[in-house]
Amino acid sequence: MLLRFFYDPKLAQASYFVGCQQTSEAIVIDPARDVEPYLAAAEAEGMRIVATTETHIHADFVSGSRELAERAGATLYLSDNGDADWKYQFVDAYNHVLLKDGDTFKVGNVKFETLHTPGHTPEHISFLMTDTAGADRPMGVFTGDFVFVGDVGRPDLLEKAAKIANTAETGARQMFTSLQRFRELPDFLQVWPGHGAGSACGKDLGAVPSSTVGYEKLFNWALANTDEESFVRDLLAGQPEPPRYFAMMKKVNKEGPAVLGRLTLPEHLPFNRLEEMLAKDRPVVDTRTASAFAASHIPGTINIPHDYSFANWAGWLLDYDVPFYLIVDQHALAEVNHDLASIGLDNSAGYFETSAIEAWASAGHELSCYNNVSTSEAAELVKHGEATIIDVRNQSEWDEGHIPEARHIMLGYLAEQAATLPTGQTIIVQCQTGGRSAVGASILQAKGFPSVHNLMGGIRDWQLAGLPVTDGKPLKTD
Amino acid sequence: MLLRFFYDPKLAQASYFVGCQQTSEAIVIDPARDVEPYLAAAEAEGMRIVATTETHIHADFVSGSRELAERAGATLYLSDNGDADWKYQFVDAYNHVLLKDGDTFKVGNVKFETLHTPGHTPEHISFLMTDTAGADRPMGVFTGDFVFVGDVGRPDLLEKAAKIANTAETGARQMFTSLQRFRELPDFLQVWPGHGAGSACGKDLGAVPSSTVGYEKLFNWALANTDEESFVRDLLAGQPEPPRYFAMMKKVNKEGPAVLGRLTLPEHLPFNRLEEMLAKDRPVVDTRTASAFAASHIPGTINIPHDYSFANWAGWLLDYDVPFYLIVDQHALAEVNHDLASIGLDNSAGYFETSAIEAWASAGHELSCYNNVSTSEAAELVKHGEATIIDVRNQSEWDEGHIPEARHIMLGYLAEQAATLPTGQTIIVQCQTGGRSAVGASILQAKGFPSVHNLMGGIRDWQLAGLPVTDGKPLKTD
Amino acid sequence: MLLRFFYDPKLAQASYFVGCQQTSEAIVIDPARDVEPYLAAAEAEGMRIVATTETHIHADFVSGSRELAERAGATLYLSDNGDADWKYQFVDAYNHVLLKDGDTFKVGNVKFETLHTPGHTPEHISFLMTDTAGADRPMGVFTGDFVFVGDVGRPDLLEKAAKIANTAETGARQMFTSLQRFRELPDFLQVWPGHGAGSACGKDLGAVPSSTVGYEKLFNWALANTDEESFVRDLLAGQPEPPRYFAMMKKVNKEGPAVLGRLTLPEHLPFNRLEEMLAKDRPVVDTRTASAFAASHIPGTINIPHDYSFANWAGWLLDYDVPFYLIVDQHALAEVNHDLASIGLDNSAGYFETSAIEAWASAGHELSCYNNVSTSEAAELVKHGEATIIDVRNQSEWDEGHIPEARHIMLGYLAEQAATLPTGQTIIVQCQTGGRSAVGASILQAKGFPSVHNLMGGIRDWQLAGLPVTDGKPLKTD
Amino acid sequence: MLLRFFYDPKLAQASYFVGCQQTSEAIVIDPARDVEPYLAAAEAEGMRIVATTETHIHADFVSGSRELAERAGATLYLSDNGDADWKYQFVDAYNHVLLKDGDTFKVGNVKFETLHTPGHTPEHISFLMTDTAGADRPMGVFTGDFVFVGDVGRPDLLEKAAKIANTAETGARQMFTSLQRFRELPDFLQVWPGHGAGSACGKDLGAVPSSTVGYEKLFNWALANTDEESFVRDLLAGQPEPPRYFAMMKKVNKEGPAVLGRLTLPEHLPFNRLEEMLAKDRPVVDTRTASAFAASHIPGTINIPHDYSFANWAGWLLDYDVPFYLIVDQHALAEVNHDLASIGLDNSAGYFETSAIEAWASAGHELSCYNNVSTSEAAELVKHGEATIIDVRNQSEWDEGHIPEARHIMLGYLAEQAATLPTGQTIIVQCQTGGRSAVGASILQAKGFPSVHNLMGGIRDWQLAGLPVTDGKPLKTD
Repeated sequence: MLLRFFYDPKLAQASYFVGCQQTSEAIVIDPARDVEPYLAAAEAEGMRIVATTETHIHADFVSGSRELAERAGATLYLSDNGDADWKYQFVDAYNHVLLKDGDTFKVGNVKFETLHTPGHTPEHISFLMTDTAGADRPMGVFTGDFVFVGDVGRPDLLEKAAKIANTAETGARQMFTSLQRFRELPDFLQVWPGHGAGSACGKDLGAVPSSTVGYEKLFNWALANTDEESFVRDLLAGQPEPPRYFAMMKKVNKEGPAVLGRLTLPEHLPFNRLEEMLAKDRPVVDTRTASAFAASHIPGTINIPHDYSFANWAGWLLDYDVPFYLIVDQHALAEVNHDLASIGLDNSAGYFETSAIEAWASAGHELSCYNNVSTSEAAELVKHGEATIIDVRNQSEWDEGHIPEARHIMLGYLAEQAATLPTGQTIIVQCQTGGRSAVGASILQAKGFPSVHNLMGGIRDWQLAGLPVTDGKPLKTD
Repeated sequence: MLLRFFYDPKLAQASYFVGCQQTSEAIVIDPARDVEPYLAAAEAEGMRIVATTETHIHADFVSGSRELAERAGATLYLSDNGDADWKYQFVDAYNHVLLKDGDTFKVGNVKFETLHTPGHTPEHISFLMTDTAGADRPMGVFTGDFVFVGDVGRPDLLEKAAKIANTAETGARQMFTSLQRFRELPDFLQVWPGHGAGSACGKDLGAVPSSTVGYEKLFNWALANTDEESFVRDLLAGQPEPPRYFAMMKKVNKEGPAVLGRLTLPEHLPFNRLEEMLAKDRPVVDTRTASAFAASHIPGTINIPHDYSFANWAGWLLDYDVPFYLIVDQHALAEVNHDLASIGLDNSAGYFETSAIEAWASAGHELSCYNNVSTSEAAELVKHGEATIIDVRNQSEWDEGHIPEARHIMLGYLAEQAATLPTGQTIIVQCQTGGRSAVGASILQAKGFPSVHNLMGGIRDWQLAGLPVTDGKPLKTD
Repeated sequence: MLLRFFYDPKLAQASYFVGCQQTSEAIVIDPARDVEPYLAAAEAEGMRIVATTETHIHADFVSGSRELAERAGATLYLSDNGDADWKYQFVDAYNHVLLKDGDTFKVGNVKFETLHTPGHTPEHISFLMTDTAGADRPMGVFTGDFVFVGDVGRPDLLEKAAKIANTAETGARQMFTSLQRFRELPDFLQVWPGHGAGSACGKDLGAVPSSTVGYEKLFNWALANTDEESFVRDLLAGQPEPPRYFAMMKKVNKEGPAVLGRLTLPEHLPFNRLEEMLAKDRPVVDTRTASAFAASHIPGTINIPHDYSFANWAGWLLDYDVPFYLIVDQHALAEVNHDLASIGLDNSAGYFETSAIEAWASAGHELSCYNNVSTSEAAELVKHGEATIIDVRNQSEWDEGHIPEARHIMLGYLAEQAATLPTGQTIIVQCQTGGRSAVGASILQAKGFPSVHNLMGGIRDWQLAGLPVTDGKPLKTD
Repeated sequence: MLLRFFYDPKLAQASYFVGCQQTSEAIVIDPARDVEPYLAAAEAEGMRIVATTETHIHADFVSGSRELAERAGATLYLSDNGDADWKYQFVDAYNHVLLKDGDTFKVGNVKFETLHTPGHTPEHISFLMTDTAGADRPMGVFTGDFVFVGDVGRPDLLEKAAKIANTAETGARQMFTSLQRFRELPDFLQVWPGHGAGSACGKDLGAVPSSTVGYEKLFNWALANTDEESFVRDLLAGQPEPPRYFAMMKKVNKEGPAVLGRLTLPEHLPFNRLEEMLAKDRPVVDTRTASAFAASHIPGTINIPHDYSFANWAGWLLDYDVPFYLIVDQHALAEVNHDLASIGLDNSAGYFETSAIEAWASAGHELSCYNNVSTSEAAELVKHGEATIIDVRNQSEWDEGHIPEARHIMLGYLAEQAATLPTGQTIIVQCQTGGRSAVGASILQAKGFPSVHNLMGGIRDWQLAGLPVTDGKPLKTD
């Protein structure tokens, strides 16, 4: 048996390639939309990807299951649990097997036993894997968004992201029940989860790729808690706002995403067409670093730096139905497209190279900039009533402590609430360490606010400078 | 003024970027379909491409004029000469200016004067360029396929490739007249032609990128000949077979090619889908080197090595209406696609990586190979009546001298004439030095011939070995 | 805590990056010589690599410990066990800590406890790792070449590769004792070994990256065996020949390898200098695929295809004291150099691009080729006494079954025993499936043997064709 | 005959590859130090580079002649004119031919006739090239730094850069004489110069790659002037300051540069070693864009953006004897090294990736920034006596017009004259459009000036805003 681990650090998402060397057959578990890495692994090993499965209908990324069914001819092994809202709608076009609790299937000599483990979602399943060629007991369990290293999946995504009322508590109670079952597994089993640290699918995931049943029983907070009521309360508390695009992902993954291999790439456009796009009010996203954008950018563009949070904020801030344009470095283009496709943002209509900014200026157009202000400068402005601070962090971060004079608008809602901000004053955007607030500053500037600053170092530096915060709680870093 | 020279060695095709630094405006002359290099040059110089022109309706590559009109918003400057068959049909969707002899236009301070120079084609025009910012006389002339370095454009493409009867001689006489006009230009003018050595648009082009009017008057054979009848005879003699795709190119360039930026890329497919494609009789083109293909390949695939002749033979051998598949090294994929697009072969439906061949074998499928035979082995086989030699060179090469026992089928016609070959015998494919015959060997093997050899070193080595050739003429190299 | 897994598939070698997020400090365990991936991981996480350790003095690759001490300023944590032969000799130039059984140290909040686990080598240590920020018991154990997934380290390398008599059995007994200790660890601990499937440091490693103590106790053959004598016998049986370069690696890693960042790259040389290098009898290694080499290559060059076994065979076949030259594809150059450096082959003096082969032929030089023969052709030649078969596999593979008429010379010894082969006859080189025999064919051809064939498909296809093999044992695949 | 044009836009430097297809021999004229492009061209054509020549001892870049003699075994054809100061000192180690006026040599069938054309330098030669296979008169002339398109070489480099008194006027008079000879050449000859627009080797070079003798006679100012005295006056007037590194280049090219293929690359260092390097006062050059640097950078580093002027300013600002460090994007590393090597800056001891800046901040270190101020802000500060403006342009630019209150220190001298600047005031650095002043701002900040601004848009925007300039002359753009 061969096991290969794939991890997309941008989505904090794990997938697994399991192959049987005796039959040259392989399966991919929870594939990401870009299936090239799995195809390459298969080709390198001389294996055929004959099957693919997913633990649940993902909300945080576009699944690659359909892509593998289409491109590699893989059979789909998918959950048959949950009510009508949770049924895959695209499976009839492909070979597929629907799975209930206890169902088993084999890929070569590797056996998979299905466990129905609802909680994160109603149809969620996990897989016990046994290498029948060399063992008669399982080696580990693929837990998807059920059990993570140090945490469990959040049950409230549905209620919050998809606006389905009263499902969070039900999910939490199902999770409690599912965990009882997990406790019965032998200590020596490996635990292969669907996410690592940084995913929005849990609140406290570890930065270790895998664990064991025994270790989780000892040190996972959720398994330590054996009282249902307090477990439910703890699980629902302090979960961050789910990104707005999660609702779209559920829908896309249920209905079947577009086949990536058939999409066109965005066109490269010369700088002189920027004017036309901005005049049409098309979103133009500048993907350079926040510091480069702050120093000079084309008026009307917004800044989503191409870092680990890029896909997340693109999902929050762009409309899935409106063609948008990118300003991007040639070297980063493929990766930017990959990241956008990973959450289904397939409607990028064209891109400009970052050199377009200099060309724009050479052609006599004006550039904009905004200031990064230090904590002392910001404190001074606020003291004299010359500026308003907008805190764009999550609700839970705000609750843990904030600048007394600040107003809270979580970054994902800033564009739509911008109209409520004072126009005659400087606005200082603030977050934890200055990353998200840079995106916020670009949004407000594009909305026409004449004086926008970004608070360098965010509330972290504010507090380090001894300036007052509503609550003495120690602050986390971004 | 700024002048940049672009050259595609695969098509032996030259294009020119001319910009005015004072107004930041630029024009591209005879753009190739892939306009990225021009966009990049413009961006680097902070210039807008406001215009594009072509000297004639190209037969050997897809023009990038429409792409620039669409992507950069450039105005089209196109010939208005020739009869109804030679009118551009897509121009109404764009800003355009149709040009007659003597028409002038300016791009910034750079002036272009149109010369109607028929011969290669009836609507062909050339441009005298004057940098009005610093000079009151022209600096040079863009001659397209009118005058090359050491040669002139061939007038017989239309008759041969597009099967329009009796046009070759008419074109030759027009060329004679056009050349009289060229003679009147001052010696110091630079000559910037549309092709370099290796193009099928002329028969004896030099490998020097540009020339001068004075030098061509002294050393170009066509300008040396002042007798119309002997000029016409010489010009029409010995022109090679025009590639079959030339007829398609004329049509595409007249009607307006598809916009490249909107095409999908071919899908990467896993090796296990090769079987399905071959079973459907889809052409599968292996782009590896001839020696790698000879040593082992997947039965049923044909070999067009991705070298300088790739686009040419793809244009000869593939059908524009049938989806085809590629076997290609990951590193070469972008360039292979570029080369195919350059001649409008947009219907590649998918590709397999070269590692698919090993995976195919690992999965238990058989591989094929064919033998490279030396001249002495080949001579032995022919002597004993055990093999037939097929010479796949051009008619003119065959006429200059060939192996007495050989039969002539030009490579571009080999597939359709394969049925006329003896099946009970070994077939030895032969060309000048062994390159084209390798393609031919792969075609015959894919057609099911059981014993196919490739003559290593071709007729060149045959002759070097002292073996008989019908005619003592010195042989050229490939 | 953060744990990142690094794996070099060419060496089947695993290394681990462990960081403490609270102090931004990190350690690398068993680093490979190319430390770029660790530096990149550290930079991405904003961590400093303050420490590096290794489980033992590696024999199969150049360690990156010194490189990290030099480049990143990391403290060296190294074993202080074993006798004088096993003491690191370069540590005084750096911050270092020498470790005995039971010693603990911390990197941020991550605690490492040293276990002395001799067997593979006398000084071998393992590390129990505890994330003290969240747990009071260990999460797992870094076992190096002590316990693998499904196997244990081989104790005979020293005796075989370094020619130190009578150490294999001693090592095997130490291993037995060390395993008793492993048995006492709790089942839930993760096991992070130093190698995966394919390493020459064990004989039966699994293709799963990590395991657990409980699973290994159940299914690892070595832990299942509780009788010392039979364990020792089993452990020593059937271990493959250790590559010749292993002895050199032990020495290099003990004395301290050259700092990679200070080495020059090989020079790119034009094809016309090949003649000079071959005339000087400098080894010229053609790194193309076996099939491309078979079809045509420059006489006198040998073929080590740049695949997963490249470093291994380069280590076997090249002399560490003789400058050698490469023929390599431009795309592969960086990786080829990386692979050579990974085993300390720093003396590549120059390289030629693969296009040099065509240029060589264009310049009128002759190329060589050898034939790939099918099993039936080979059987025919042997039957008529026209050919000798040389089996170049390992002793253990030979012992399991071979072609009756074959003679055994393991590939690593072929060059030096070539003089014992008959010169008047065709030689057919054979291995398991045709990979190693291709290398062997190139060696014999370079040695001047006039007629060399490679047996396609090796003994696997021979047996599949129903041809006789000395012993009915089922054959493994390469 | 085959002619290929190579152009390094960073150095505005042209070189030429000329090959004879009949003998497969080639020569490179005025090769740049990085000879890879010539080797690749030769390999693609199956040609051997048997010769290399240079028109003179270059001052603006390291010549590749020695590299080609060493790597390809090329014969050196070098000038034997000029006094003892102008003799090549490394030629005895290689095959070489020293050339006097009138000497001819052949490469295959291509003939080169030497013309001694002093002026730019005393030993300067040009070459008339004749393709004897097809013509009995020359095709063109390689003029090096003698005649450019629209200009001639400057004769004052020696006096200014190498501090050799009284040579400029002598050179100007020699140039006048040499030009008489040029006038006698036939109009139809092509002119292939050694530089294009942007080189510091002439003052008004065109942006067209080549010209003709006839066109230059008509429109080159230097050929239009037939009065020696006024010619000398005009030629010496308004030449810009030659970069400081020119003196070093003359020396290096005369003595023989180090062979590039044998140099080590700079080491990649982790961010935590920045502190150590800065503490040792080692120059650390941040190669990011000026806007990114302005917004945030590591204190003590200086900014030389990696654009077309990078090598020039690196040559001005770095000391050839002091190891320096780079901060560079991984994608740009190879090109940055190439650019540094092109002017002999071989002593880069290590590099940090741009991500080191974020890691530096994450680790709790402070970052610096400086402000870009608008013309109105700057004018306000100057009006109130709160700031001093430093104009860092060339003397000739300053002479054409400057801000009345500004003080002139050319950028190349800013570091050494920084001590003369007022420390109690804000310093605003200014140039033509804001590019060079950004480098200057970084230098002053690294020198410890507490308040440094960069004037956005430079004097161009200042003047566009209607603010006073000493002199009404129209300003040029950067």
